[in-house]
Order: sequence, then structure tokens, then C-alpha cells
Amino acid sequence: MHTPFTRRAVVATTGAAALVTALSGASPATALPGTPPGRPAPQAPAASWETCLAVARAILVLDEHDAPLVPGYARILLHDGLPRGRRRKKVLIVGAGPAGLVAADLLRRAGHDVTVVEANGNRVGGRIKTFRTGGHEGAAQPFADRRQYAEAGAMRIPESHPLVTGLMDGLGLRRRRFYLTDVDSSGRPANRTWIQANGVRVRRSEYERRPRTLNRTFGVPEKHLDTTAAEIYRAALGPARSLIEGKQGRALVEGWAAVLQRYGDWSMYRYLTEEAGLDARTVDLVGTVQNVTSRLHLSFVHSFLSAALISPDTAFYELPDGTATLADALYAKVADVVRLDRRAVRVEHGARGGVTVHTVSEGRDGTVVRESFTGDEAIITVPFAGLRHVTFTPALSYGKRRAVTELHYDAATKVLLEFSRRWWEFDEADWKTELDAISPGLYERYRRGATPGDGSLLGAHPSVPPGHITAGQRAHYAAHRSALRDQPEAAQVIGGGSTSDNANRFMFEPSHPVPGSPGGVLLASYSWADDALKWDALDDEERYPKALGGVQDVYGQRVEVFYTGMGRTQSWMRDPYAYGEASVLLPGQHTELLPDVATAEGPLHFAGCHTSVKPAWIEGAVESAVRAALEVHTRETAPRP
Amino acid sequence: MHTPFTRRAVVATTGAAALVTALSGASPATALPGTPPGRPAPQAPAASWETCLAVARAILVLDEHDAPLVPGYARILLHDGLPRGRRRKKVLIVGAGPAGLVAADLLRRAGHDVTVVEANGNRVGGRIKTFRTGGHEGAAQPFADRRQYAEAGAMRIPESHPLVTGLMDGLGLRRRRFYLTDVDSSGRPANRTWIQANGVRVRRSEYERRPRTLNRTFGVPEKHLDTTAAEIYRAALGPARSLIEGKQGRALVEGWAAVLQRYGDWSMYRYLTEEAGLDARTVDLVGTVQNVTSRLHLSFVHSFLSAALISPDTAFYELPDGTATLADALYAKVADVVRLDRRAVRVEHGARGGVTVHTVSEGRDGTVVRESFTGDEAIITVPFAGLRHVTFTPALSYGKRRAVTELHYDAATKVLLEFSRRWWEFDEADWKTELDAISPGLYERYRRGATPGDGSLLGAHPSVPPGHITAGQRAHYAAHRSALRDQPEAAQVIGGGSTSDNANRFMFEPSHPVPGSPGGVLLASYSWADDALKWDALDDEERYPKALGGVQDVYGQRVEVFYTGMGRTQSWMRDPYAYGEASVLLPGQHTELLPDVATAEGPLHFAGCHTSVKPAWIEGAVESAVRAALEVHTRETAPRP
Repeated sequence: MHTPFTRRAVVATTGAAALVTALSGASPATALPGTPPGRPAPQAPAASWETCLAVARAILVLDEHDAPLVPGYARILLHDGLPRGRRRKKVLIVGAGPAGLVAADLLRRAGHDVTVVEANGNRVGGRIKTFRTGGHEGAAQPFADRRQYAEAGAMRIPESHPLVTGLMDGLGLRRRRFYLTDVDSSGRPANRTWIQANGVRVRRSEYERRPRTLNRTFGVPEKHLDTTAAEIYRAALGPARSLIEGKQGRALVEGWAAVLQRYGDWSMYRYLTEEAGLDARTVDLVGTVQNVTSRLHLSFVHSFLSAALISPDTAFYELPDGTATLADALYAKVADVVRLDRRAVRVEHGARGGVTVHTVSEGRDGTVVRESFTGDEAIITVPFAGLRHVTFTPALSYGKRRAVTELHYDAATKVLLEFSRRWWEFDEADWKTELDAISPGLYERYRRGATPGDGSLLGAHPSVPPGHITAGQRAHYAAHRSALRDQPEAAQVIGGGSTSDNANRFMFEPSHPVPGSPGGVLLASYSWADDALKWDALDDEERYPKALGGVQDVYGQRVEVFYTGMGRTQSWMRDPYAYGEASVLLPGQHTELLPDVATAEGPLHFAGCHTSVKPAWIEGAVESAVRAALEVHTRETAPRP
Repeated sequence: MHTPFTRRAVVATTGAAALVTALSGASPATALPGTPPGRPAPQAPAASWETCLAVARAILVLDEHDAPLVPGYARILLHDGLPRGRRRKKVLIVGAGPAGLVAADLLRRAGHDVTVVEANGNRVGGRIKTFRTGGHEGAAQPFADRRQYAEAGAMRIPESHPLVTGLMDGLGLRRRRFYLTDVDSSGRPANRTWIQANGVRVRRSEYERRPRTLNRTFGVPEKHLDTTAAEIYRAALGPARSLIEGKQGRALVEGWAAVLQRYGDWSMYRYLTEEAGLDARTVDLVGTVQNVTSRLHLSFVHSFLSAALISPDTAFYELPDGTATLADALYAKVADVVRLDRRAVRVEHGARGGVTVHTVSEGRDGTVVRESFTGDEAIITVPFAGLRHVTFTPALSYGKRRAVTELHYDAATKVLLEFSRRWWEFDEADWKTELDAISPGLYERYRRGATPGDGSLLGAHPSVPPGHITAGQRAHYAAHRSALRDQPEAAQVIGGGSTSDNANRFMFEPSHPVPGSPGGVLLASYSWADDALKWDALDDEERYPKALGGVQDVYGQRVEVFYTGMGRTQSWMRDPYAYGEASVLLPGQHTELLPDVATAEGPLHFAGCHTSVKPAWIEGAVESAVRAALEVHTRETAPRP
């Protein structure tokens, strides 16, 4: 008779165990279609306590005895390398993002024969990507000023991520602060960026002093009128936070397991309305200001983890010349074994070892090249959204197949605009000087809202190099035309960013100038989920002037004079290899799918940030790289005949 | 003092009322930023009973006295037109989808001066779109056989939709059956299409006789082993259905309101696990077979409504020569007032009437043309996902703005492949004849799995016209190569479709041959949400051979010989004017947002399927068109000075 069981029972007995057996290198048995292992389990909808404990350990990066894995990972990554004296293996690594590059380096230094196949024809780094001139990818100049660069992907490294910060330090990459909150010229938090919603615009510092001005435009009830959105959100997260706050060791593991068991299959929307008891208007306020709205329907646990990380309490770092300098440095160590322009489409694997990865090139010259690679084992770092179109022979286990099919990837789109001056740093005197240099009295005309809205002043400042603003951009600019004609006072901010309820949603100013350049690239829009997909539908010719209009809603019309006409967009959902920004899980997926994501299947190992509980963060990718390299390195296999 | 209130209270007092005041033409007061009307309301997370009643009436299309609106709409649409004797108005209609075209015709016949602006440069119909040769859009031939056509959008009209079926009949368009379930050659349900999952392939009729064969591959518990996914799903929906089943009149309204109050902010995932108590494996079975998985995190109410409609109990119709013949017929009546290639980007409106719509052209010749249109009132039919990038001056009400920002649009992608023979109708004798005509013994070699997998037999049948299968397609085909080498028996199906857990998910065979053509176009993949976005990331050169591989997983390798090399893809998320398949709401949005979606704001009226509770259905668009035309026609305004 077929033994009845539930998905969660299988997780508890197979997949979940795999999350914590990385250091031992033991691969748990994998479920086969129709014949999964398991034992009877209750039909209760909540995840089993065992599963919750296993996922809690994955969140905390602990082994099955609750001992931290990161110190061991750090020793291997930053000092000792992998243990000595193992059999030399031929290892294929699919994907040259940070996970693939770090794993390749570790395995090579341990004596293995490594080949990395990468889909991109000219670039490694995955979702580490900088719009810049040159670099290892030999990129064409992206902005009017050749010195300018901007991040398409990873742009901030939290201090709380020891592996990636250690890696950067070890590679001799100098870190500097990325300002999540804007600072004054001496680097002290200034909180002068804007929050704009429902037609009201307030500086963050002003909002903290008097939340009512903005809050009342959302119609929040009296009891929330004088509390900031950040504080309402913090208080709302209290019941979940109370399960973990102040705990350590086993108690902390059990606290996280309790969070998962109680809220693991909840959306943030459900949590805020049912647990926190917030009314819909207050949810809208918090969602708009704290960047929660577009992911309300996604996993509570994901946003709960993010809220702890992306906060004014966390210091962030960035790399001068762009995050891609990390990709450059990692690539330099293994470039001779990386095969670019080889995208995996089919993987054949044997139960007792042996892997063949079939690839195609992108056929840019009209010819699609097919090439196959063989090895003893393989590390697959491809995001699961992309893996859906990769055929595995034989098929992967039920749990893995389901994870590949269902693991949710979220959209994220960045729209970057170049300006010939860093106008966001200006005071009113700077504005007067610069605007009157275009035409005497122009400063006053802007203040009175008396300048034409037809785009005739677009890029009008003498510092804007000619030739980049097309007629199409001008036409779209004039047609869309920002709705707000008032002129707020000079922003005077360095770093940080403004928030708006318009389509741009989040705008970030650069934390540091580019040496020698008076200009700067503004992250004019950073949006997620549905907000991001809407930007994807516009052509560049329309997207840039439209994004500029959104910036003007917040900072005033006069910024138009410095626009160079050069913009760049990164839609991670439209990236043909990423298929999304990262695995932002749906309610329930942490306990239902995650335990099967990282599990090795015979000679196939899985890495990448989606196999960690830090999706979208380089730390998660690096952590997974060390784990997977250890798995490959220490896995005992029968010698080949 | 600022009166405290919640979002839901405002819904109850303003927006919700608007849903049911269409016939009277009275526009309720609209909330202004920061000063919305309202009264104190409880903080309970569940929607107010008043709101639930109002949305229930919208679902049932009843007026505020619970009287059906559809008979009146049908009289206006199909017989009488709008009431006589109103003041002639200048009316702008934005968008020439079915809502815009129907409203234009009604208003013109009532004596108004109507202009329709449409973003597409060569086509009307919106998400009614047929890949065909010619038509009003003068389309280039999409398939190798000039006679072939296939649906990019709307493809089936349920008999339970009286307005659209009446409209088609009135226009003299002959309807014929669309077979949701495959039929035999005499048109009787055959249920011979396949369900394939976890490496097992069973015919639907076989699955109904013995569900265990497939169910056990999902590891469902014993109690569900011998029940079909359809039956498990039907039973799971029981608790919600019991609130409405067998009810009529006021009791039915209250039943739907109870569904909304109880489950309105639930996802289908929550419902299936918490209310129906299904374990995760059974949810996966039901999700895979009944097409629920990709929308598990979206609104329960949406899928609950769909389940009632898309079922073997509902008869569906299609139009010979494609659904676009309906667009042709609607367009023919108003073509002289439709301005193509004019996309609205900014709308100025006055409180006492008067609307200016600013538009841009797509600039295909390199020049973006701007043109503005003015009128007394306007009907905006643009999907809200697209409206997010349209600026309104002054800003719309808080409720409308929030709905525009948050109303969720779902992705849907169709991949269509042309074959020179309708092999799905073949029996084994047909296969033997056709394959051996290519090369004697080929039939047997396919049966033994002894044919090459390198694509050398792609399009090998003499009926396949040369020149359409590119070298790139062949290379991708060989690289991807279907994993399954077994050869199932001949499908022998007409219409209906197969289901797979592979990336294709749902495949539909045409219900009728195209006169004179021995070939046919297979809907090789119809997928939603995350499943759809993954197809969008592939280039055509790879998507078509990959989709063919997914068809081969289900129907066998031999179908390759008839592939013409011609495919078509419609990604509604990538459509620059649709921005998604339709408004598939998130949990809570039916009560939180929907009441504000259809509400008129001064001279601005809103139509389109998203303003009904039938998103993605033409019926919803037509229903909204009649409502909005009535609003415009009957709205009393002060005479212009």
C-alpha cells in the first residue's frame, strides 16, 4: 500500500535536513517521482515544527546542532581554503555570478579541474552589474560623461554580511559608505530627502517632527495621525519580533521556528491587517512610505527579514567605481576556466556521478553554437526562474521540480538618469548662479512657475553636452509634462533617497561624487513587483522623459536644465538570464519549497542566493558558494570504472 | 478636527454606491486628496457589510434595489439604444477595445459627437486580437499557410454572457462551438486529451476512471488517491459555494456578500489550506491539473468566480475566422471617428465639465506626433496598469489613485505553433501513412524511439513548405531536445486541450479546421502569472523549438515532422498598451479597490473589463460600455457659458 503522507512530512525527513548538512557533505536521499520517502503526518496546514526548525537554522546559518556555519565558511573563504587531500574531481559550474565565481575559485585552489559556463557573451557577475565604460566586459560608454557609472543591480552591502565584506577586503577592494539616509557635507545624517504623497511633499526630518501633515492625506485614524510610518511599521512587526528579540542560541532558533510556524504561510497584507490590526488606510500609508505596498501579497517572512536589514540602523557600503569591480576581481582569479556565451539548456546526470551540460550560444552572428561539457559533478547556480526551461535527464526529484516551477521571482526595475550637475546637492544660491547663467532671471521664473512646460529648457544648461536629447524624448517630455508646477526649496542632499507615490516610487542620490565629474547619475526610479512591470512597458525614448517628470514632481521643474538625455534601464524581469530580481517567496514557500531548493541530487549541487535565505544579497550567493563547494569537495563517490 | 475613518468606511459611503448607480447616471462625490469624506468606522479588518453587498451586486450586475441591470443593458445595446432627447455632448473615448467601440457606437447613435483615440497604430480591439492575414489592421501573413489564423487574446465566449453573444448575433456573426473538452468526429465529448505530470501521462477519460495512477505521483494522502483533481477542487470550494448555492434574489446578494466578507481578503492558497484543509501535496495536484497553481497567491474570489465559469458545464463559442471579426464589425460602425496611433498620456479635466486628452503617436517614422483632443466628457477604457503612467490634472481622488496604483494585472502568454497537418486528429493508421511517406519504416522507428533527436526530422514531411525553419531554430531544438523518448498512441482529438506540469502547462487544439487547409495552429502553451513571465524571457528563435519540445513531451516526438517553423507569441504583460492579461485581483482588492474603479470623477467616466467583475471577458467590457455610455448620456451638467 502506498503510505499516505503530506508534503511537509517529506520536507521534514529529506529536504530540510539538507539545509544543515552542508559541512558534512552528506547528500540526503532525494524523492523520486511517485515514490517519495515519507512517513504519516498530520493534515494540519501549519508546517511541522521540524521543518520550521530547519528553515530557522537556514535563516540563522546554523548547522543541525545549532552551531554557526559562517565562521567555518569565513575561514575557508578568506583564509584556509577547502580541506586538503581529497580526490581531484572534474567540476562543472553553471553560471558565473558571484556564487559560481567564488565556488570556482575555492574548488580550483583545492586542486579540482573546474569549468564555468556562463550565458552572457561578454560579462560575468550575474546581478552584480554596473553601467560603466570598459570593465572586464569592455562595455560601451553608457553616459555622456565617460567617467560616470551607476548600478544596474547590487548597490549596497550591509555591514552585517561578513562573507562579502571579508571577501572585498581580502581582494583589496576599498569600501566606503553607501548612505541609505542622506547626509550633510560632513557625512552626518541630515534626513532632508523628500516624502511626497497625495499631493503633499515633506522632508523626512519634518515628517518625523510632524507626521500629521502627511498622514492625514491617507486618512489614517486619529490614533496613527502623529506616528511616523516607520514607527507604525516597527510597532506592527512587534508581535513577530517578540518571538525572537533578545534571544540567543537554541532559544533564537526556536523563536524563528515559531515565526515560521505562526506566520510562514501569511502574506504581509494578512499580517498587517489581521495580526497588527491595521486599517486599510494605515496599511496604505506604511506601504507607500516604507516600500511595502508592491509586496503586500508576498511572504510576510521575506519582508520581515528585509525590514530588519534595510533600516537606518544598518550601515551599508559600496565600492568606488561600482560593484562590478568585485566581479572584475573574482573573474580575474578564474577567467581562464570561464566559458562565456554558453547557456545551459539541458543537463544529463547519472545516479553515481557524471554530468553533461549542453549549452547554446546566443547566436549574435546568426549562428547558434552548441557545445557540451562533461564533469564528475556540477554546481548549478542558475536562478530557478531560468531553470524552468532547462531540461534535466533524468528528471529532478519531486520536491526540486516543484521548487523550480513555483519559487516566486519578483520584478525589479531601475531607471537611471544622468545630469551634468549634482543639483540635489545645490543650495538656493547654487541654483540662482546656475540658472541665471542660462538666461538672466530664469531662477526667478522657475520659482514663480512661469517657465514653459514644453521641454524647451530640457538640457538647457551650458554644461550639458549636445546631441543626446532626441526629438522623440523632447516630444514625450512635453506631452507627459509633470503635473506639479510648484518649486520646492533646494534639496541639498548627499546620498539617501526620496519616496513618492508617483510611478517612480523610490529615488536614490549617489552617496559620493565621481572623481573629476561635476555631474551625477540619479537612480530616478527603483521599483518592485507590479510597479516595476509598468516601467518595462515603455520604450526608452519615453521612459526617460517620463522618469524625469516623476523626479520633477518631487524636486521641482528646474532640474530639467541639467538632464543630459542619457539614461539607462535595468529590468531584471526582462533580463534573459535572471528572469527577475530575486526569489521573493510567496506565503508558505519558506517551509514548503525552500528546504528542497539547496538539496543536492546525486552529482548535482545547487548554489546562488536563492538557495540561501538572503535572496538578492551577494552574501547569500557567497554563503551558498562555500556550502556547495564543500559539498562537491567532500562528497564521497565511487571511483569511476 | 480631522475626522478619523478607515478606507473601508469611505468605500461604503462613496465608491461602492457608484457601482450600483450606473443606470441613474448620478456620480457620487469623489474624495479629494487629504480631505476625503467619511465617517467613523470600526477598525475590524473584514470589509463592511455594506461594501460587501455593493460588490456582491457588482458581481451579479444588480442595481441598488437588487434588480438585474443586464436586461436593461441588453435592451439598450441590442434594440432601443440610449434614451432619446438628451443634450448633445462632445465625448472623448480613450481606447478602442470592445468597451470603447461599443460605447462610441451607442453614444453616436444617441446623437453625441464622439471621438475615439486609440494607441495602436493599425488595430482596434484591445485584447481581442487574432493573428491572421489582412483584417481591418491589414496584418502581414502570420503563418506559412495564408488561410491559417489563431487567437492572441480572447478565444472563447461562454454561453452565459448575454451581452456579447447578443452583440455577435446582432452583428450577423455566426457563432460555433469552442470545445473546452475535446470531442470525437461527431462532436460528442471524448475526453481523450492528456494529463501529464511527474513523468506519468494519462488520458482525461482514463484519469476519471482511475485517478490513482496520476494522484500517487503527487504523493497525495490515501483519502484523495481515488478522487480526480476536478472533484477535489469542487469539494474544496464547497464551503464558499454553500453560501450562494440554490439562492436567488436578495438571499443570493447576501450570499455573495458573505463570500466576500469571509474570504474577500483570502488568497486561494489560504482557502485551500485553511478552509478546505488540503495538504500541500493535494494542493499541488489540484493546482497542476486544474490550473490553479500560478494564481494561488491571488484573490480567492477571482479564482472562485473563474471556477464557476471555466468548467465542462459551460458551453463556449468562437467566431469563424477569429474573434477579431467582432472587432472588425464593431470598428466598421465607428471607424470614421476613431483616431489610431494616438496614445493618451495626460488628461486635464475641470470639475464642471470639459476634458482635454493629450496624446502621442508611436513615432514609427522617427517623429513623435503630439495631438490634443477636447470634449465635454470622456470615457477612459485604458487598463489601470497602463493608466499608472497617464497624468491627471487635477489628480484623481484618493480611492481612484490607489486603485490605479495597486490593481493587480496578471501576466498571460500564448505560444502558437503551426503544423502542416492536424496530427492531433490522426489515428495510428494516419500516422503510419504520413510518416512512411517521408521515409519507409519511419513510423516504426518513431514507435521504437529510434529516430535521431538532433532535429534532422524537424519539418521533414513533404507538406511542410520550405524556408521557415531557420538554422537557429534547428540548433535550439537539438540543444533542448525533449526529455521523454516514449511514443504515446495517437491522440485523436478535436478541440479541447492537454495539461502538463512542464513549462507549456496548457495546450489547446483548434475546435474546427480552417476551410481548405489541411494544417492547423496549436496553442502550444497558454500560461499565466510566473509561468508566463518565464516564456517571455526567451527569444522567438528559441521559444518555438522549446515550446515544440513541451508538446512532444505530451504527444510524442513524431509531431516534429509537421512543424512549419512558423510560430506566434502573445505576451500580454509585454504588450505596451495592455500591461497584462487582465486585472486579476489580489486578496482584499475586491472590497478595498473595486468600488473605486468604476466611479466617475466629474466629467471622467471609466469603462473596460477591469471596471466590471468579469476581467478578461468581453462581456465585462461590453457591460461597462453600456454603463459608461448611460452615465455620459444621462449626466446633467451645467450648460457651457
